[in-house]
Amino acid sequence: RFETVNEEDAVGIVRGLAWTSVGGDTLEVEVNLMPGSGKLHLTGQMGDVMKESAEAALSYVRSVSPAYQVDSAVYEKNDIHVHIPEGAVPKDGPSAGITMATAMLSAVTNKKVKADLAMTGEITLRGRVLPIGGLKEKLLAAKMADIHTVLVPGNNKPHVQELSSEILDGMDIKFVGSMDEVLKEALV
Amino acid sequence: RFETVNEEDAVGIVRGLAWTSVGGDTLEVEVNLMPGSGKLHLTGQMGDVMKESAEAALSYVRSVSPAYQVDSAVYEKNDIHVHIPEGAVPKDGPSAGITMATAMLSAVTNKKVKADLAMTGEITLRGRVLPIGGLKEKLLAAKMADIHTVLVPGNNKPHVQELSSEILDGMDIKFVGSMDEVLKEALV
Amino acid sequence: RFETVNEEDAVGIVRGLAWTSVGGDTLEVEVNLMPGSGKLHLTGQMGDVMKESAEAALSYVRSVSPAYQVDSAVYEKNDIHVHIPEGAVPKDGPSAGITMATAMLSAVTNKKVKADLAMTGEITLRGRVLPIGGLKEKLLAAKMADIHTVLVPGNNKPHVQELSSEILDGMDIKFVGSMDEVLKEALV
Amino acid sequence: RFETVNEEDAVGIVRGLAWTSVGGDTLEVEVNLMPGSGKLHLTGQMGDVMKESAEAALSYVRSVSPAYQVDSAVYEKNDIHVHIPEGAVPKDGPSAGITMATAMLSAVTNKKVKADLAMTGEITLRGRVLPIGGLKEKLLAAKMADIHTVLVPGNNKPHVQELSSEILDGMDIKFVGSMDEVLKEALV
Amino acid sequence: RFETVNEEDAVGIVRGLAWTSVGGDTLEVEVNLMPGSGKLHLTGQMGDVMKESAEAALSYVRSVSPAYQVDSAVYEKNDIHVHIPEGAVPKDGPSAGITMATAMLSAVTNKKVKADLAMTGEITLRGRVLPIGGLKEKLLAAKMADIHTVLVPGNNKPHVQELSSEILDGMDIKFVGSMDEVLKEALV
Amino acid sequence: RFETVNEEDAVGIVRGLAWTSVGGDTLEVEVNLMPGSGKLHLTGQMGDVMKESAEAALSYVRSVSPAYQVDSAVYEKNDIHVHIPEGAVPKDGPSAGITMATAMLSAVTNKKVKADLAMTGEITLRGRVLPIGGLKEKLLAAKMADIHTVLVPGNNKPHVQELSSEILDGMDIKFVGSMDEVLKEALV
Ligand SMILES: [Ca+2]
Ligand SMILES: [Ca+2]
Ligand SMILES: [Ca+2]
Ligand SMILES: [Ca+2]
Ligand SMILES: [Ca+2]
Ligand SMILES: [Ca+2]
Ligand SMILES: [Ca+2]
Ligand SMILES: [Ca+2]
Ligand SMILES: [Ca+2]
Ligand SMILES: [Ca+2]
Ligand SMILES: [Ca+2]
Ligand SMILES: [Ca+2]
Repeated sequence: RFETVNEEDAVGIVRGLAWTSVGGDTLEVEVNLMPGSGKLHLTGQMGDVMKESAEAALSYVRSVSPAYQVDSAVYEKNDIHVHIPEGAVPKDGPSAGITMATAMLSAVTNKKVKADLAMTGEITLRGRVLPIGGLKEKLLAAKMADIHTVLVPGNNKPHVQELSSEILDGMDIKFVGSMDEVLKEALV
Repeated sequence: RFETVNEEDAVGIVRGLAWTSVGGDTLEVEVNLMPGSGKLHLTGQMGDVMKESAEAALSYVRSVSPAYQVDSAVYEKNDIHVHIPEGAVPKDGPSAGITMATAMLSAVTNKKVKADLAMTGEITLRGRVLPIGGLKEKLLAAKMADIHTVLVPGNNKPHVQELSSEILDGMDIKFVGSMDEVLKEALV
Repeated sequence: RFETVNEEDAVGIVRGLAWTSVGGDTLEVEVNLMPGSGKLHLTGQMGDVMKESAEAALSYVRSVSPAYQVDSAVYEKNDIHVHIPEGAVPKDGPSAGITMATAMLSAVTNKKVKADLAMTGEITLRGRVLPIGGLKEKLLAAKMADIHTVLVPGNNKPHVQELSSEILDGMDIKFVGSMDEVLKEALV
Repeated sequence: RFETVNEEDAVGIVRGLAWTSVGGDTLEVEVNLMPGSGKLHLTGQMGDVMKESAEAALSYVRSVSPAYQVDSAVYEKNDIHVHIPEGAVPKDGPSAGITMATAMLSAVTNKKVKADLAMTGEITLRGRVLPIGGLKEKLLAAKMADIHTVLVPGNNKPHVQELSSEILDGMDIKFVGSMDEVLKEALV
Repeated sequence: RFETVNEEDAVGIVRGLAWTSVGGDTLEVEVNLMPGSGKLHLTGQMGDVMKESAEAALSYVRSVSPAYQVDSAVYEKNDIHVHIPEGAVPKDGPSAGITMATAMLSAVTNKKVKADLAMTGEITLRGRVLPIGGLKEKLLAAKMADIHTVLVPGNNKPHVQELSSEILDGMDIKFVGSMDEVLKEALV
Repeated sequence: RFETVNEEDAVGIVRGLAWTSVGGDTLEVEVNLMPGSGKLHLTGQMGDVMKESAEAALSYVRSVSPAYQVDSAVYEKNDIHVHIPEGAVPKDGPSAGITMATAMLSAVTNKKVKADLAMTGEITLRGRVLPIGGLKEKLLAAKMADIHTVLVPGNNKPHVQELSSEILDGMDIKFVGSMDEVLKEALV
């Protein structure tokens, strides 16, 4: 694996964690906003569950837009493109939900996201953060990618407590229960 | 299972009951209204029957809108997003019909739905409530989720009468035959 | 089976008869008209043949609209939703054609349909009524649902004559060859 | 088979001949014109080849519209519905091409088609009539339906010459090479 | 096979050559232009590769339109229908590319195409002519259809040189490397 | 293989390298811009991953348009057609990403691309160049097509260092990490 990792805080890029058949992996969610007609473009070989997760993320982001001074017309006059490299690797599951929501909100508000943090968690329309699977593998992948701050769903706390200190040493696990808490940690 | 349950009365969230291969489960139907062009977005791995059920629910809600002082233009100038977490779990069947209809009506009228009540029942275009299956498992799931008031289709009364007192003790079963009765119980 | 049957004459509801692998059954065709853009929504797990039958029914209804003082703009400024409960039961075949056409015409003219009558028959674009199968099972289902007036395609007369008096006793079979005759019997 | 056959010359109805696994059959192509946006609705369980044949027929009809004083706006401001009963019987093949074209032209010009004639033949965009299969079975079906005038593609002449007098007696076979010839025979 | 062959130079009709499992065949590409909204209709049981070939042909034709004094609005205010009889025979492959492009250009410019010539070759967006397969079978089919002038991709020259004089005698093979050369030969 | 290779610098044509089951191959990405409504047409038997790659490429190109003085309205008032001959050969994978992006940017800016250079690399929305597979086979194919300058992702450097001098002799490998570097090399 010879990936260039984005090392500066940037707009529209957020690091997520995936759990695949061959272990954990880091992934970067990229979001572009472009003049259009309200369409959501999803690329990077996403499966059905992940695509629905992106729709839920967008719906949440739209519902909180007034609080971020984003005019709702933004969503009707633009298309939103969410891409997750590497484009040939199939990806699925709901656990990139909060990652996609954060990347979308970053793109529409033009606020940067911290480069040295990763996150995992399912999102609901109301911005609740639901627990996910494969936590051990995901944390290992973050560690190997030199990312030491990871946002984890509060309801996964019992799973974290079962992990060995070998995995947790040097890691800063922050439990989040809502997108409000996610955004407080992730946005610069 | 480590779910955060919504514990306050809220707009656009209604608790339903599902019957899956591994038993009963509670589910939360979330509805968002957002500026759009009249599209219905359905996420949460819903099967065909459940999707049609959502369409029937919306059609019912639209037909009773005048009685709730909702302008029909609301449906043409907005999109409605119905999501049911957990996004990776396949869901199907018509029994969330009245739950989705209640959540939609709550969203378009901005009226809160009681948090301490769950419901199950098929809906028709005219707002009749048709009987459903898996009643025993669903009631058990409600009980375990600490929900003690459950709306059940009137035509399921014979099934309720067959249940043991072990299941029914402490439960407040309310039989409903029409959406009018459902809404009278569910809206704050 | 614990169904609530619509017992009053109503607009947009017509009783049909189905022939399934487990025998005859009554079904209620519900039609809602709502502001829209001319789309036809079909729910209730209809198969391809039944969906095409609904399209043919709508085309017929539109073609006779002038005779019923219905402006053709009605079809362009509204969506028509045809639903057949029970939503989980797959339904197919062309024999609900005249039932759907009657329910549609009732909805667009706001004329009530008699509650105590059922019907079965394929429809053509010109309003001819074509013969159907499973007549014996369908008549039995009507009888068991306490419906004693049934509209049957004229070309099924030979099949009716073969039935035992046990089935026919107490039934009022009316043979119909065209939608004109159907509507004369069905509308209040 | 207990079909009511349309026995008067009418607008938008033309008799075709089909060749199915169980022999020849007559079929009636029905065409309705209704206010719309230029869509072509095809019902009656048509297969892909038959659907493309309908598209080719429409394209031909549009190309000759000026010669029939039909304004091209007619096709943009209306939808055209082509239905072939019996709706449950799968139909396919290109041999209803000239039948559909004749029914369409009848519908847009409001000219009646002769009730006592049937036809079979593939159509091309330029109105050429191409040969078809199953001629013997089709002619027998016409005869049994008491239709004695049949339009047959000129290039099928060798096949007709091979048929026994038993089949041909009492039949008036007219060979056609182009839609011009078809319309001259079919329109009242 | 009893086909009527178009024997006069005509607008929008070009003869191609196909190579099927049962040998070579001639085919006629027909193109109609009709008022519409820029859609491309493809009929005649074309496979995916042939459909993409038609799209590439159209894109080429549009790109050279200024050189032929064709206003680009022509493509936005019309639909283009490409049909290849016989409608029941599946067709595929890229080798009708230059044939379809020539028929399209003929249709939009209203220039006639020579009736006594056939062609075969893949087209690129830039109008290059790429080599094709089944040359021997295609040339034989042309010969049997009494067509003696055939346009062949320049890069197929080695294949032609391998053919016996039995096939080539009486044939006028013209090698073409670009659509410019094709059109110079084909248009009247 | 008898291909005509584009030998002059041209607008909208870029040489890529493919790795198929039978070895490496060169391919030419062609891009046409034509008046339309913002649609992306993809032809040449592209698989899902390659199509998503084209979408990512377009999204990147749109995001950098201001830097190239391209008005964003260009993308809304035109359709973009990306074609890769040979149209019958299935193609897939993300490695043509930078090739398609370069061809698109060439087309919208009307800047020529050097004819004597090929490239391979996955693209991300932010214009990063990700590593690809089959490098040895691709470089051999370039060499055999007489192309001696090849752009290769920087993260593939280790793979290049493993190659024999037999392959590398006479080749000018330029490592690129971002589209900025690609465009600096490729545009005339
Ligand atoms: Ca990787
Ligand atoms: Ca990775
Ligand atoms: Ca659960
Ligand atoms: Ca649950
Ligand atoms: Ca039932
Ligand atoms: Ca029933
Ligand atoms: Ca029949
Ligand atoms: Ca028949
Ligand atoms: Ca042939
Ligand atoms: Ca032929
Ligand atoms: Ca090749
Ligand atoms: Ca090649």
